[in-house]
Amino acid sequence: MSGTPYGKSMAQAAVAAAQAAAPKRVERVYNFNPGPAVLPVAALEEAQRDLLALPGVGMSVLEISHRSKTFDAILAEAEADLRALLNIPDNYKVVFLQGGASLQFTMVPMNLLPKDGVADYIHTGHWAEAALKEAKKLGRVNIAGSTEADNFSRIPRQEELKLDPTAAYVHFTSNNTIEGTEWAMEPEVGGVPLVCDASSDILSRPIEVRKYGLIYAGAQKNMGPAGVTVVIVSDDLLARVPAGLPAMLDYKLQAEKKSVYNTPPVFAIYVLRLVMKWLRGLGGLKEMERRNREKAELLYHAIDASGGFYRGTAEKASRSRMNVTFRLPTEELEKKFVAEAAQQKLVGLAGHRTVGGMRASIFNAFPLEGVQALVAFMKDFQQKSG
Amino acid sequence: MSGTPYGKSMAQAAVAAAQAAAPKRVERVYNFNPGPAVLPVAALEEAQRDLLALPGVGMSVLEISHRSKTFDAILAEAEADLRALLNIPDNYKVVFLQGGASLQFTMVPMNLLPKDGVADYIHTGHWAEAALKEAKKLGRVNIAGSTEADNFSRIPRQEELKLDPTAAYVHFTSNNTIEGTEWAMEPEVGGVPLVCDASSDILSRPIEVRKYGLIYAGAQKNMGPAGVTVVIVSDDLLARVPAGLPAMLDYKLQAEKKSVYNTPPVFAIYVLRLVMKWLRGLGGLKEMERRNREKAELLYHAIDASGGFYRGTAEKASRSRMNVTFRLPTEELEKKFVAEAAQQKLVGLAGHRTVGGMRASIFNAFPLEGVQALVAFMKDFQQKSG
Repeated sequence: MSGTPYGKSMAQAAVAAAQAAAPKRVERVYNFNPGPAVLPVAALEEAQRDLLALPGVGMSVLEISHRSKTFDAILAEAEADLRALLNIPDNYKVVFLQGGASLQFTMVPMNLLPKDGVADYIHTGHWAEAALKEAKKLGRVNIAGSTEADNFSRIPRQEELKLDPTAAYVHFTSNNTIEGTEWAMEPEVGGVPLVCDASSDILSRPIEVRKYGLIYAGAQKNMGPAGVTVVIVSDDLLARVPAGLPAMLDYKLQAEKKSVYNTPPVFAIYVLRLVMKWLRGLGGLKEMERRNREKAELLYHAIDASGGFYRGTAEKASRSRMNVTFRLPTEELEKKFVAEAAQQKLVGLAGHRTVGGMRASIFNAFPLEGVQALVAFMKDFQQKSG
Repeated sequence: MSGTPYGKSMAQAAVAAAQAAAPKRVERVYNFNPGPAVLPVAALEEAQRDLLALPGVGMSVLEISHRSKTFDAILAEAEADLRALLNIPDNYKVVFLQGGASLQFTMVPMNLLPKDGVADYIHTGHWAEAALKEAKKLGRVNIAGSTEADNFSRIPRQEELKLDPTAAYVHFTSNNTIEGTEWAMEPEVGGVPLVCDASSDILSRPIEVRKYGLIYAGAQKNMGPAGVTVVIVSDDLLARVPAGLPAMLDYKLQAEKKSVYNTPPVFAIYVLRLVMKWLRGLGGLKEMERRNREKAELLYHAIDASGGFYRGTAEKASRSRMNVTFRLPTEELEKKFVAEAAQQKLVGLAGHRTVGGMRASIFNAFPLEGVQALVAFMKDFQQKSG
């Protein structure tokens, strides 16, 4: 089978690599997907350049040992950059895990909800519900607030929350990817630890980590590819973890073992590190917030200025800067919109299958030019359809 | 910050991609690491070529939706190739999960060991022990065999096993990466379901899947990069999964949702699929077995013909074809051996930190030329040191 590219020797490979890498123009679309989502081109380029062998290592990052000095450095840099970007206090651990936010829905109550305790969950939509459903399998849950009656078109107001002062923690979802809503500020929870699913807006703006007991986030929106989950947890909460948990589901053990209790998702952490580098290079979270605000305002303005042709689904005060959800006059027009946009290389604009409509996900790495292109397309489309 | 490569626009990126991809020779070493381990160069090349945009898609595989047709096809091809290679019967499901074999140490008993039941575990070393330790946290475990008295230098003989005919399952570790031992044949277990951690020898040779109830394997030795775990499970065992398990830890749900209950590790599955393509291209598992036998025999012969300078640590009948463990006359010589080998681009030869000595991991993708180079180095080293 030596005629196929999959039967080559290492000697032939070096030659073929050079050929495969011959200059050619890479055609990329504007990717409005809600996650996995667009990544910084600079990060992709560096990953591509070194994919056959990291400089000075002679192995692909896909082949290096997780106990090697090379990976030690990658992991340390990923953590250091994340700490610098979010200004994470020293009394918090950063852990890189697998399984996405969905596994955190189980790990949070397994580690932090005592048998005789109760946890407050704030219900703001699809993913908030997924979290509280898993918690209910393991303990007692109090729904401390819900905007279900408003079809989750808004974030609850502070005075609507019915918090239990004895709760083990309060769980909330900082950005609701499907409903297009986002907490402008964290809920006030007194002395109860705040636990946050920040999967879809982490690193989009500065936050005050010390307000939280635990923050978790799947990487595949603002941090990197699917396959790694970041957990930021206070030492206070780690001290509450009961003994005897399954090793892989034990925050304390994972923190003690510094994310290498077993083989971690090496490549996903490597790309995450490249994304952190990109974020620091552009000026950190203040600058990222400025850019995200600019993109979101541009798009929401186009919606609001359309004379009702485009209608935002979230209440204005609850609008997400990450996922802009809107409707058109009819479902037929919506289908047409998605199809014609795709022809213009504006891809991934259909809303979640459970709610329909449009959704433009404009995470950190989504470029302003892409929003400008969408806004121009929206104007054209309205004119044509009006 | 537009002067840095991390501050570029998409327009600039296309140009830069062409520059970054300028032909250059890639220097690679012989990678004897025990996992993550060497991958087929052809798979790495294809991943590299398309890393900025999959052909016709305009997005990186790191950016595509796990609900897209593109990923549907990747997942379907990965499964189809795996089924073809292992000849997996139709009454078995294939599931791609996260968390490595270590999470399976928990998922197996959580799904398959009833509260009033018992599970047989065969203890053949470090990883077998890790599996049974996690099982003990969740239920009753019977040690159905152990070669601890022989320092795990061999696989138990069939007549040594003390199997419980009422056991929910029998668990064994088909290849012991650290101890350098491998089961030549599966244990005979009557009608009790056989559960196997096949992380370090899956796809190295044909096996009869219908002898097993469940096979699990982390990808990072013979299948792909770290970050994805394959589970092959019979419908009979799936029917035993109790209701109410955490969703992410529920085999039945994961099988029903066809590995996309939540966002799977898209890139790791993509590379796994490229590795499956390579395996099919070279002729499948019979040819793979022939190559693996050739590599292992060459290396064991060099050890056995060294007049005692190199000493294999495993009993001959239990020798692994994947991990060849051996010692030198002194620890000092062993250190020297590792250091000098590395200078010859023979990297990763130190044994596991818990046992010391040498270990040459020669998984599927490890080339024969690398074993030849090691054997030549061993002869030189002995001559110099003798």
